[in-house]
Formats: sequence, C-alpha cells, structure tokens
Amino acid sequence: MVERTVVIVGMTGSMGSQALEVIKKMGSFRVLAGTYHSSFDKAQSLAKEYAVEKLICTKDGYEELEAFLEQRRPDIVMVCIPGFASLPVTLKALRTSKRVLLASKEALVCGGWLVKEAMKETSCELIPLDSEHSAVMQLYEPSVEGILLTSSGGALRDWKLEDLDRAKPEDVLRHPVWKMGKRITIDSATMVNKGFEVLEACELFQLQASQVEVLIHREGLVHAAVFLKDGTIKMHLGFPDMRVPIAYGLTYPDRRYEHRKWPNFAETQLRFQQVEKCRYPAFYLAYEIENDYAKRTAYNAADEVCVEAFLQGRIRFTDIARVLAKVVEKIEGTPRDLQDLKDVDEASRKLAEEVIEWL
Amino acid sequence: MVERTVVIVGMTGSMGSQALEVIKKMGSFRVLAGTYHSSFDKAQSLAKEYAVEKLICTKDGYEELEAFLEQRRPDIVMVCIPGFASLPVTLKALRTSKRVLLASKEALVCGGWLVKEAMKETSCELIPLDSEHSAVMQLYEPSVEGILLTSSGGALRDWKLEDLDRAKPEDVLRHPVWKMGKRITIDSATMVNKGFEVLEACELFQLQASQVEVLIHREGLVHAAVFLKDGTIKMHLGFPDMRVPIAYGLTYPDRRYEHRKWPNFAETQLRFQQVEKCRYPAFYLAYEIENDYAKRTAYNAADEVCVEAFLQGRIRFTDIARVLAKVVEKIEGTPRDLQDLKDVDEASRKLAEEVIEWL
Repeated sequence: MVERTVVIVGMTGSMGSQALEVIKKMGSFRVLAGTYHSSFDKAQSLAKEYAVEKLICTKDGYEELEAFLEQRRPDIVMVCIPGFASLPVTLKALRTSKRVLLASKEALVCGGWLVKEAMKETSCELIPLDSEHSAVMQLYEPSVEGILLTSSGGALRDWKLEDLDRAKPEDVLRHPVWKMGKRITIDSATMVNKGFEVLEACELFQLQASQVEVLIHREGLVHAAVFLKDGTIKMHLGFPDMRVPIAYGLTYPDRRYEHRKWPNFAETQLRFQQVEKCRYPAFYLAYEIENDYAKRTAYNAADEVCVEAFLQGRIRFTDIARVLAKVVEKIEGTPRDLQDLKDVDEASRKLAEEVIEWL
Repeated sequence: MVERTVVIVGMTGSMGSQALEVIKKMGSFRVLAGTYHSSFDKAQSLAKEYAVEKLICTKDGYEELEAFLEQRRPDIVMVCIPGFASLPVTLKALRTSKRVLLASKEALVCGGWLVKEAMKETSCELIPLDSEHSAVMQLYEPSVEGILLTSSGGALRDWKLEDLDRAKPEDVLRHPVWKMGKRITIDSATMVNKGFEVLEACELFQLQASQVEVLIHREGLVHAAVFLKDGTIKMHLGFPDMRVPIAYGLTYPDRRYEHRKWPNFAETQLRFQQVEKCRYPAFYLAYEIENDYAKRTAYNAADEVCVEAFLQGRIRFTDIARVLAKVVEKIEGTPRDLQDLKDVDEASRKLAEEVIEWL
C-alpha cells in the first residue's frame, strides 16, 4: 500500500490524538508534522509515541506551518484547531495538499465561499470529520433532496424550561453522548453547534438550509440520514466514536479501519423528536442567516464570547441566545475576503461584549 | 435518454402491473412483451393501457417466451412468476438479456448455483426486486460484514403461542404491512418467506447465513441494513411500496423514479425484536439447510404444498412447520442440473403430501 503523508493541525487536541491512534492502528501513513499551541509536553510525548517527524508551535502564528505546507505538500492535512485561525489554515491546506480533513467549523460557517473558491482552483478534496457530516458523505448520492442531522439535545434537554435560567456551567458540561471540549459541550446544550452544522452541511452538499432537518435523537446511534427523490431514506448509525469518521476521512473511498462493534438493535429503540423553538432559540438563528456570511461570522464570534462569559459566571445560560440574536441582528456587511471576515469577527466580539455589559 | 426494451414475465400479477405503472410514469422504456398464465382479459387491458407490444401465454409452457427472448434479446427481463418454472426462465433470461430483475424466489433458493453459473458465462446483471434485497443492494459496499433483514412477523405475531394451532386462513391472510398474494402472506406468518430471503441474500451478496440477521420490525419502515467492518451501519428505510425497488431495478445505477414521500421520524419510533424460535420454527430451518440445494428445494416445494393444504383446511397453521421439518430432514441428494432439481422438487411435493396424510 502506498504510504500517504499527513500533517495534523491541532495535534494535541482530542481529534488530533485520536487521529494519531487511528493512523498507528491502520499503518501506511507517515505523519510529517503536528502542531501544538501551548501543550509542548503533550506534543513531545505524542510525537515520540506516534513517530511524528516534526512539531510546529502555532502560539505566535501560523507562518511556520504555512511555509512547511508550501514546501512539503503533504497528501493529507487534518485541520482541527478551534477558532477563526482555522479558516486561513484550511485555505492554505486546500492549495498545498490533495485532501483536507476538516474538523474546525469556522472554515465553512464563516468562510464557506472562500473555501469553495479555493477548491475550484485546485483538485483538493475536502472531507468533513464531524460524525454527522461524515455520515451524510457516506450516504450521499445525486438524488439527495434533503438530509437529517441528529442531535443529542445536550445536557439540559430534559430540564424544565423555567429552570434553564439557573443552569450552571457544571450542569451544562455533562453531555449525554459525546465527551468533548468545553465550548462544544456548551454549544450542544444551546444547539448552536447544530446550527453551525446546518450551515456547514449546506456548503458541503449544495443544499438550502430548508433541506436540512434536525431532530433530537437520544440514543446517540443515528448520526444522519439522506432523503432521496424516490422516497428512499438511507440512515447512518454506529456507536459514537470519532475514530470512525477520522479513519474514513483518511482512507476514503476505502474503509480500512477495523472496529467490529455494532449496536444491538433488538435491545434498543430509535426515537426522534422535534427541536423545540422555545428551548433552543439560538439553534434556529442559523436558518435565518443562511445566506449572510457577515451574520454567520457574527453568530460564531458572539457564541465564542458568550460561552466564555457563561463559563466565567458573567451571564446566565439563557442569555447566550439573547446575546446571539442581538449581535446577529446588528452586524451587517458583505465580506469579500479573509480580512473583511476578520474585521466582522472582531466587531462581533466587541459587540457581544457590549451586549453582555448591557444585560 | 436511450430507450430500453423490457419483457415482463408474469405481467398480470401484482409486481408485473406495478412495473407497467412505473414504466409509464418514468418513460424511456419500451415493453416488448408481457406474459400471462390464465388472466387473458387482464393481460389485454394492461397491454392496451401500457402499450405492451406482444402478449405471450405461458399456460402450456415457456417455449414461446424462450424463443422470443432468443430472437429479440431485450435489455431487461423482469421475472415475477411464482413456482419452479421461474428458475429455467431466469436462466434463459440471463443468457439473452443485459439485466434480469428477479422477483421469483425459486431461482436463488433452489437453483442458486445454476444462476451463478449462468452469470459467469454472460455479463448480465441480476437485480433483486424484493424490497429487502433491493435495500441491501443499495447499501452494499465491499466492507460489508453482515446484513440485517427486517420482517413484519406476519399476521400472527401477537397471538398467544397456544392459540396458533387454531389460526384460520382468514386470520393469517391479514398481513400487517404488505398487501400481497396468498402464499407469500401465509409465508410471512410462518416467516418461511424470510427463510427464503436469507438464502437469497447469501447468494446475492456472497454471505454465509450466519452473517444474515433477521429482526422483527413492526413499523415496516426499515427494510434492511448493512454492518460494515469499521462499526458503521447503513440502514435503508421508506414507506412499503414495491414500485420503488422495481423502479430502482429498472434505472440502476441511476434513481429516476420520483416519489417524494418520506416517513416523519419525529412521529414514529423504530423498534426491533428477536425472532422467537418457538413461534417461527420454520424460519430457522433455512439456517440449517444453507449449503444443501436438495433440502433448499424441498423447503420450497413442501412449503407450497403446505400452504395449499392450510388454505384448504386440511392442516393446521402449526402443522406447516412440522411438515417442512420432516420433508427437509428426509430429502437428500446432490442435484447437478435443472432436471435433478425438478426431480427433487417433485419428490418433495409427494413426500409433503404423504407427511400431511400421516399427521
């Protein structure tokens, strides 16, 4: 089997280290480099364990990484860093590699059209690592007329509506299905994360947001489904395990990862329920800003500010949706390039802080 | 679009007339001929409505049909006649057309190896029309390690075990999901039909019977699933409607049929349950005779006799499984060709009648 070269941007995070595990198990990949931000010790120990050839620190910027990508032109770049920086890194990776595995949401949520422009100029593949989008990709065929993304509903899905005001960070951080970072766990409870996923799915699969249905699915086994024009539905299921979509992204169109553990359907039921507007107002914002990259950028930026403020005890859980709605309403513009987006991002953060002050 | 020529063997049955409906709706097919057994009036009216160019009567045999296939070499032959005659017709169709759409179970249950031999000699495609097998085909990929076929459990699925002895034909003919012919409806209640499907699936997808799981699924929405080696499951769903797999078979690899009606998952649950051995003993016989074409032929032949006897009130519902077990146990042989199979078929019918007499 031909050895493929990989660069992992954000190697010390949960996705990065699971990728290393998967790569070691499957063989036939060579990790040219991995980046770290501040976890130098973890980076060193991972590099040793998984034979990562070079470590790149990104604390002071991404110049070294970008130069490395230019020079080495790896087969695969995996982008799993949080924040706005993931967008320029993704654009660079699309221009210097054959396949980009994308875990960072900012690239498509904020800069969808920039990503598509970059893809037109190259033959680079873009493969999503989110379990939901990976699932849709695995089911996709030209006659898709709509898709279903599932959501756990987050940690507060069974709380009384009137109690949501009182939810503390430790309540919200108890995610029922996935063990993830703090921001994404909070974003699961507000379902802002699912809002991002709706916008990403539209970019990845050429859909309108109205073609993307989201339902709460408690069992955590169904990741997505596609609705085909002849009435057929294909559904993608499996135990929640990020190593599966990571491996799929690495080996696509083959499926080389071996993990023979399937849910026993005789012992379970698959249930789905509507996403209540009164419980998840911030989720539904995504459908309103579908065609406006300024507001989409504001949605992401303000959410990051709100999550931080909530974790610090500066705002209540239910304030997140209020701040988001206000910031998304106020921010306007027609960003044309990365710098425009950065400006919108900054303005949105400032505005979010102001709105939080006024609360 | 290139017009494709079709011959429908068994045009006046439910599958045949649904095929005509689908063909009319989609266009770009030309029905060269349709066969009928005794329903001449229905055949004439269908021929008129759907522009079927020629009617062939098969009451006295299939020579005329076979000569027609030899001469006209249609693109597609759809085989949906009941009984053992479907096997030689299928073999002829495989040698005279580009694609065989198969609804008749005898071809693969009794003559699986003959069908495979015929396929090796030609480049003809074999596409199943059963909703379950069509579903598996739509989900299939090389890393499939097992499949799930669903079953309604038939009309008596909720009867007390001790009442099954007293089930009358009219009880058994009330199928909970599909409206079908009498034999297949009785076969659904014994789940012998699902036993056939297990054997067919093994032939179609190169599986061992132990790789084919069957679960009862009451909602009738999930048709099948495939288990992939990385822990992924793909599931195929939709409202029960034979026109969908028929259209898929006609247009594969495209999906041209338009029927935009999908189940609403927010209003339903998907449940599955084990197939109880005490309730469906005749189903489990299929797993024991997987590698024995004589016993497989006996299983089919004896079942046909039993269903007839049950409908005539000559045996009880629960006798069907008893007779099947006895016939399958006694019949032995190593059929090498169609004539051998016909002999086994005949011997099995005779034996089944004898067993019924002894009851």
